[in-house]
Amino acid sequence: MSERIIDVLIIGSGPAGLQAAVHAVRKKAEVVVLGKVERSAIYQAHVENYLCVPGVTDGSELMATALEQAQKFGAEVIAEDVLNIEQDGELYKVKIESGRQFMARTLIFATGNARKKLKVKGEKELSGKGVSYCVDCDANFYRNAKVAVVGNESAAVDGAITLTRYASEVHLVARKLEASPELRAELSQSPVQLHEGQWVKEIQGEQAVAGLVLENDTTLEVEGVFIELGAKGAMDLAATMGVAMDPETFSFIATNKKQETNMAGIYAAGDIAGPPWQMAKAVGEGCVAGWEAANFAAKQKRADAA
Amino acid sequence: MSERIIDVLIIGSGPAGLQAAVHAVRKKAEVVVLGKVERSAIYQAHVENYLCVPGVTDGSELMATALEQAQKFGAEVIAEDVLNIEQDGELYKVKIESGRQFMARTLIFATGNARKKLKVKGEKELSGKGVSYCVDCDANFYRNAKVAVVGNESAAVDGAITLTRYASEVHLVARKLEASPELRAELSQSPVQLHEGQWVKEIQGEQAVAGLVLENDTTLEVEGVFIELGAKGAMDLAATMGVAMDPETFSFIATNKKQETNMAGIYAAGDIAGPPWQMAKAVGEGCVAGWEAANFAAKQKRADAA
Ligand SMILES: Cc1cc2nc3c(=O)[nH]c(=O)nc-3n(C[C@H](O)[C@H](O)[C@H](O)COP(=O)(O)OP(=O)(O)OC[C@H]3O[C@@H](n4cnc5c(N)ncnc54)[C@H](O)[C@@H]3O)c2cc1C
Ligand SMILES: Cc1cc2nc3c(=O)[nH]c(=O)nc-3n(C[C@H](O)[C@H](O)[C@H](O)COP(=O)(O)OP(=O)(O)OC[C@H]3O[C@@H](n4cnc5c(N)ncnc54)[C@H](O)[C@@H]3O)c2cc1C
Repeated sequence: MSERIIDVLIIGSGPAGLQAAVHAVRKKAEVVVLGKVERSAIYQAHVENYLCVPGVTDGSELMATALEQAQKFGAEVIAEDVLNIEQDGELYKVKIESGRQFMARTLIFATGNARKKLKVKGEKELSGKGVSYCVDCDANFYRNAKVAVVGNESAAVDGAITLTRYASEVHLVARKLEASPELRAELSQSPVQLHEGQWVKEIQGEQAVAGLVLENDTTLEVEGVFIELGAKGAMDLAATMGVAMDPETFSFIATNKKQETNMAGIYAAGDIAGPPWQMAKAVGEGCVAGWEAANFAAKQKRADAA
Repeated sequence: MSERIIDVLIIGSGPAGLQAAVHAVRKKAEVVVLGKVERSAIYQAHVENYLCVPGVTDGSELMATALEQAQKFGAEVIAEDVLNIEQDGELYKVKIESGRQFMARTLIFATGNARKKLKVKGEKELSGKGVSYCVDCDANFYRNAKVAVVGNESAAVDGAITLTRYASEVHLVARKLEASPELRAELSQSPVQLHEGQWVKEIQGEQAVAGLVLENDTTLEVEGVFIELGAKGAMDLAATMGVAMDPETFSFIATNKKQETNMAGIYAAGDIAGPPWQMAKAVGEGCVAGWEAANFAAKQKRADAA
């Protein structure tokens, strides 16, 4: 387990994260970017409205260029998800899938849109009535209840394991698990009931969630459904840290014009910091967050040295 | 004199203005962009830190691409400076160099860095002590005084003419006038004393401006020096409109996360909306401003129709 003190640790390697990296490096910060580029929302897109990139460009092509650019500037990019963050004095301790750990002076949440929808019958109607997108926000409401988590990646696996500390019964529905070996091992030792190769057809219930119908027509009788698509969601990571959400919608991290959150040294940029969900806006906020985080880290280092 | 009602009128055709145009058009707004692309600050730059444009790229090349992109989306771009803006009910009336006039539901200030420096001895020391960068902000302090304006473009010419209504003597120092024929005609009919082919060597004074030394060693005895480089500055345009500046520095337009100013329907984006002065940030704010302005205009149209 290696421990290093990073000036600016960026969680997410989409447009926001990589632009933040470029600007933080330019300000002489030591920068690490965590996350899987190919999980960026832009990978599904054909982009023609990002200035100075003419024509219709494939999102995957854009991100290949961006990744190379950030690395060439001097950012270290590690294609692993963050699983856990803890405050440690004035530093932040960040654990990633392989178990490696980093100490960082500043964090930038650039984890993209937080509430990836399942798009099945009942989801919208029962949202907030048993359907949740944030284990760490809502686990406590399901003490001794039966719940299910839906998703293939680290967010889902980690969420399910967490829920075993609250709920009486935890199901994990996954088309195909894509979590790290470490996380899979933890899962197999937990009481989570895994339904691999399955997916959700419908969420049932009138005023509240009553059950989850799978594609094979089994019904899981649960009161809570946690939709955790993608990586360990920033909503979860942020919620456990005490990072404040937008007070109106609770669906993105609240930031000011400097991309600062309510917590010193923690920034957010891109889709996770609210609408419009656009690459140009993600890049702009990334620039500001990278710039500001680098300044913050430099000031902290000077103070530490004094 | 043509009068049209434009949904989103963008003042400035740098990265912020052109990205705003792209996003406003995408939201079905009728968009006009005013300003000279080759006056964008990025024209002097070699850019390598704008995401997804790899290598070192010439600013002029970037802007040629951006201009074509905005036009292809459907924005009308007119290479003229704005000289004057007035409120007219819920609309804004905008006059450009050629005398043409537009009515607009919303305005986006994307005019770039407001305080272009002259970089001569005395400028910094006497800033705020007789050296000003905003005629419309400070003209009133120079009633019956002798003043000089320095600059070649519309901002300088228009500023000098404006000052004749306040000051007892107005000098205009210009290397080579680049204003429109209409503005030149107005200038020649005014009492402004033109020093063409000249430039400033030094600003003199101890506690306050006492004189302006030209390259030919003439000294103009003035109490006020207005530095008006570039186009009619957004500071001036905004100040006369009542658009609020950043309350700490007074050097850029104050905006919220939606790029809204204090005035309904008026937005600002890019360098004019504050640091960091970076293309990525300009593009990000342009995206948001274009998006929000288009929404505002659509709402206004619906209300008008109802
Ligand atoms: C189908 C589609 C089409 C689109 N079309 C356009 C378009 O034409 N133009 C446009 O401007 N925008 C478009 N968008 C929106 C655009 O993709 C997003 O606005 C943009 O990708 C946001 O960038 P981001 O960096 O904030 O987030 P993302 O690009 O989503 O990147 C998030 C990153 O965070 C990482 N991450 C998440 N959780 C963790 C974790 N726990 N640990 C480590 N890393 C984590 C992910 O792996 C990913 O790398 C489209 C989106 C979609 C879905
Ligand atoms: C030497 C130099 C190097 C730089 N290098 C970099 C770099 O490497 N990377 C980077 O990201 N940034 C760089 N920058 C900064 C970058 O150029 C700016 O951040 C960016 O251009 C800001 O965009 P903008 O659209 O806000 O303003 P600008 O690009 O300055 O555009 C302003 C526009 O407004 C127009 N305008 C002004 N007044 C009026 C009026 N009255 N009526 C109509 N139009 C008007 C102008 O004609 C122009 O078209 C550099 C700047 C300079 C000067």
